[in-house]
Amino acid sequence: MKKSLIAMAVLAAAAGSASAQSSVTVFGIVDVAVRHVDGDGTTKTLLSSGGLSTGRIGFRGIEDLGGGLKAGFWLESQVNADDGTQPQARFWHRRATVSLISDSLGEVRLGRDFAPTYSAFADYDAFGDNGVAAFTAMYKPRTVSGTTPQTAVRDDNQVSYILPTTLGGIYGQASVAAGEGTKGSKYYGGRIGYKTGPFDVSAAYGQTELASSDDKYKLFVVGGSYDFGVAKILAAYQEAKYDVGVASIDGLKDKLLTVGATVPVGAFVIRASYDQVKADDDKNAKRLSLGGIYNLSKRTAFYGTYSVIDNDDAGTFVVADSPAVAAGKKSQGVEVGVRHSF
Amino acid sequence: MKKSLIAMAVLAAAAGSASAQSSVTVFGIVDVAVRHVDGDGTTKTLLSSGGLSTGRIGFRGIEDLGGGLKAGFWLESQVNADDGTQPQARFWHRRATVSLISDSLGEVRLGRDFAPTYSAFADYDAFGDNGVAAFTAMYKPRTVSGTTPQTAVRDDNQVSYILPTTLGGIYGQASVAAGEGTKGSKYYGGRIGYKTGPFDVSAAYGQTELASSDDKYKLFVVGGSYDFGVAKILAAYQEAKYDVGVASIDGLKDKLLTVGATVPVGAFVIRASYDQVKADDDKNAKRLSLGGIYNLSKRTAFYGTYSVIDNDDAGTFVVADSPAVAAGKKSQGVEVGVRHSF
Amino acid sequence: MKKSLIAMAVLAAAAGSASAQSSVTVFGIVDVAVRHVDGDGTTKTLLSSGGLSTGRIGFRGIEDLGGGLKAGFWLESQVNADDGTQPQARFWHRRATVSLISDSLGEVRLGRDFAPTYSAFADYDAFGDNGVAAFTAMYKPRTVSGTTPQTAVRDDNQVSYILPTTLGGIYGQASVAAGEGTKGSKYYGGRIGYKTGPFDVSAAYGQTELASSDDKYKLFVVGGSYDFGVAKILAAYQEAKYDVGVASIDGLKDKLLTVGATVPVGAFVIRASYDQVKADDDKNAKRLSLGGIYNLSKRTAFYGTYSVIDNDDAGTFVVADSPAVAAGKKSQGVEVGVRHSF
Repeated sequence: MKKSLIAMAVLAAAAGSASAQSSVTVFGIVDVAVRHVDGDGTTKTLLSSGGLSTGRIGFRGIEDLGGGLKAGFWLESQVNADDGTQPQARFWHRRATVSLISDSLGEVRLGRDFAPTYSAFADYDAFGDNGVAAFTAMYKPRTVSGTTPQTAVRDDNQVSYILPTTLGGIYGQASVAAGEGTKGSKYYGGRIGYKTGPFDVSAAYGQTELASSDDKYKLFVVGGSYDFGVAKILAAYQEAKYDVGVASIDGLKDKLLTVGATVPVGAFVIRASYDQVKADDDKNAKRLSLGGIYNLSKRTAFYGTYSVIDNDDAGTFVVADSPAVAAGKKSQGVEVGVRHSF
Repeated sequence: MKKSLIAMAVLAAAAGSASAQSSVTVFGIVDVAVRHVDGDGTTKTLLSSGGLSTGRIGFRGIEDLGGGLKAGFWLESQVNADDGTQPQARFWHRRATVSLISDSLGEVRLGRDFAPTYSAFADYDAFGDNGVAAFTAMYKPRTVSGTTPQTAVRDDNQVSYILPTTLGGIYGQASVAAGEGTKGSKYYGGRIGYKTGPFDVSAAYGQTELASSDDKYKLFVVGGSYDFGVAKILAAYQEAKYDVGVASIDGLKDKLLTVGATVPVGAFVIRASYDQVKADDDKNAKRLSLGGIYNLSKRTAFYGTYSVIDNDDAGTFVVADSPAVAAGKKSQGVEVGVRHSF
Repeated sequence: MKKSLIAMAVLAAAAGSASAQSSVTVFGIVDVAVRHVDGDGTTKTLLSSGGLSTGRIGFRGIEDLGGGLKAGFWLESQVNADDGTQPQARFWHRRATVSLISDSLGEVRLGRDFAPTYSAFADYDAFGDNGVAAFTAMYKPRTVSGTTPQTAVRDDNQVSYILPTTLGGIYGQASVAAGEGTKGSKYYGGRIGYKTGPFDVSAAYGQTELASSDDKYKLFVVGGSYDFGVAKILAAYQEAKYDVGVASIDGLKDKLLTVGATVPVGAFVIRASYDQVKADDDKNAKRLSLGGIYNLSKRTAFYGTYSVIDNDDAGTFVVADSPAVAAGKKSQGVEVGVRHSF
């Protein structure tokens, strides 16, 4: 994604004045695909959005305050170009943050943003949680006493501290999200990782308060990737545990594994992944995903993806937009689309 | 409408680097008028939006991929500046598309966009379907078994192929919109035209599936214009036909005709049109519209418009914002406003 | 707030052409704080937005039409970065206007904008109506026969005439807002002031029609400020009067006073204010607010604010986000945050 700098550079060049700080970058993605899904024999063909990357439009900027200190903001809204909707309750659903960044001490970031436990899995998914292969199709936090964790992907009211990039490859983030009376929103979590050359590994832990402070949703995540050049291998594992007052769910664990690879072949990238979800209550499934990307340019790509979820036992997982299936049945989807970044 | 280019040109000029592809254009219209309407003697005075052109803000861009191939996106939202609303269910109501464009082979466009049957009429309306003279006041698709066509103006989930501009004046578009389970949304349609010098003519056909696949809303449209220099003459005719299972509506036809002219006089443009709607169930009306535009600049204009609908028989059509009228009664409106483009 | 000019300057510099008119400025504020509030002993800690200035994103521009005439537009949306919401019913809640501006004759502005009676108070509030010290916490128009004035801050459908800046320090605005059938929205008001060097004073009057044309909400406002250099002193007073058909409210007056000061100390600004509300029905309160701003740059600031409302008699006023309190009880809040402008 090359971004369009609407920048102080402009002021500087054009008006001949202006300090070097002022800048707004307008950026975004429009991604539309033709998708065909099959839930145990019931099929549907539709136009969909976000098969390769979620559609979005955003505004962001960084101000250099001098002395290694920067301030920044980031506002990002989801765009479903298939039907022109902004489909979320929050207009700036994807991100709304203000940051203070010290080159040596790290970043303090306030606002709505990804939970570190989410990124710690998604960063190692070969399909980046998008389209018919999106891993969140098999990542379903459970409802306990009427409360579902609101922190599976992003958090409102989050205060994060992010390590500086000067620690010899060590990176990390610690986050706290205020509940503000919304059940399932009070969260703390963190992630620590190490990245050097082709190697990247990280671990994360997060805990969300559910209906009462006695009900906890706990998430442990580890992941890693290695770029061999001819191929990049990725893997991630997460375990969600419910320490809650409801006996039938208390102690229950949901385990999710992904193993994948991306293989660049000139302007092509081949992607593949195998996912497996295993729960203490037998809501289990296996999944195979296969896809290709053809980059017309840095900003524009064609892509195609196929994914099949093979439910075991009590599993009823389905790919995006698939009709629901009975326990143990298959759901699959295929899509071909175009992604354009700006 | 001169657009503000927030462009790679900027990067190129200012940063001295950058490939020639990156560009986002921010564009829009703010159009507010004082409107007075009269529905058979009941009057109302209000501030309104979009009297000359619908208020909007949009973001769009074109990337040159080389070899005569381009990629582009277009996101456009409605703005009613009178009350600060974005009045539509879809934020990017006006357009949300991604395109691949070949100079020689044409364009494939995916997303929410105008239906070709709509453009084939609107392009030949002297008032461009805006304000108190908007022709859609007399273009009311009927509800059959609880379903109203959703395709009268724009379509969600539309895949369009648009002919290239290299065919010696022949232009055209073929479109398919996926229904995706929303009744009244499954559509296919096309338009073919010929434009050379002052002469432009086109025809279009579209078909929408209503409550069931047995219920069809069919639209035939022809239109043309000729620019004599001292005046441009425009005319369009459309016939909507209901091939449906409901006996009282089956076979019913709604016919709409517009004949108009625009006359430039220096910075002024005089506009006039006569419209007539005639239905098999006597929901009939005649209409006269008269208006003037004074262009302060290419981007800013004053305007005034008057329109009167004279309902016949069972007709109950009214101009925008007019109080409802009984069958056969008159509705009229007048407005003066300012339109500013950016 | 330094604004990012996405401007004709750009076109001119980059494309080497373009008239001098085209320009869109993208601007905004992201402001997030940690806020702690206490309503008579019940406390709450939260992340909040707009402690120093309301979060926003906007688009605006001015076109020079020549001969001292300009056209302009302004679209501004609220952004609550703590949770990524645009929290208002109107997307362009903060402002949506089109203007024609004559250097010598003044400005005509159409659309949604501040009511002049609001600005005439807010301009002299040391805390600018933001955060835990926001004066509107004590500025509650009453509901009469089911109708609350919609004009306390901004008006839909407003036509304003604003005096030119060439009158030797005299400034002023007259506004009319069409009711358009929404009760509590029909408004007229005006403000006249005089500003020279360190001295600024103004007075305003506005009247809103409530449930019927017999029910009037009338607002009288006076305010002024004097900048001594070492400190700026501000004061404002407003009286809301209900001339209505409901006997229990008819003739009732709500009086609000603020006296404040801002003291610059290098990059710091100290702010303090004392507010008092006094009503004929004993809904009374006093308030003390104290705060500091540390400007890291022109665009980025840290701030902290404390405010306590001491209700008297029947008063139940609370600071923003505070739990409700019983009559006569205290509400207080403190916040520390960061504001970043772009």
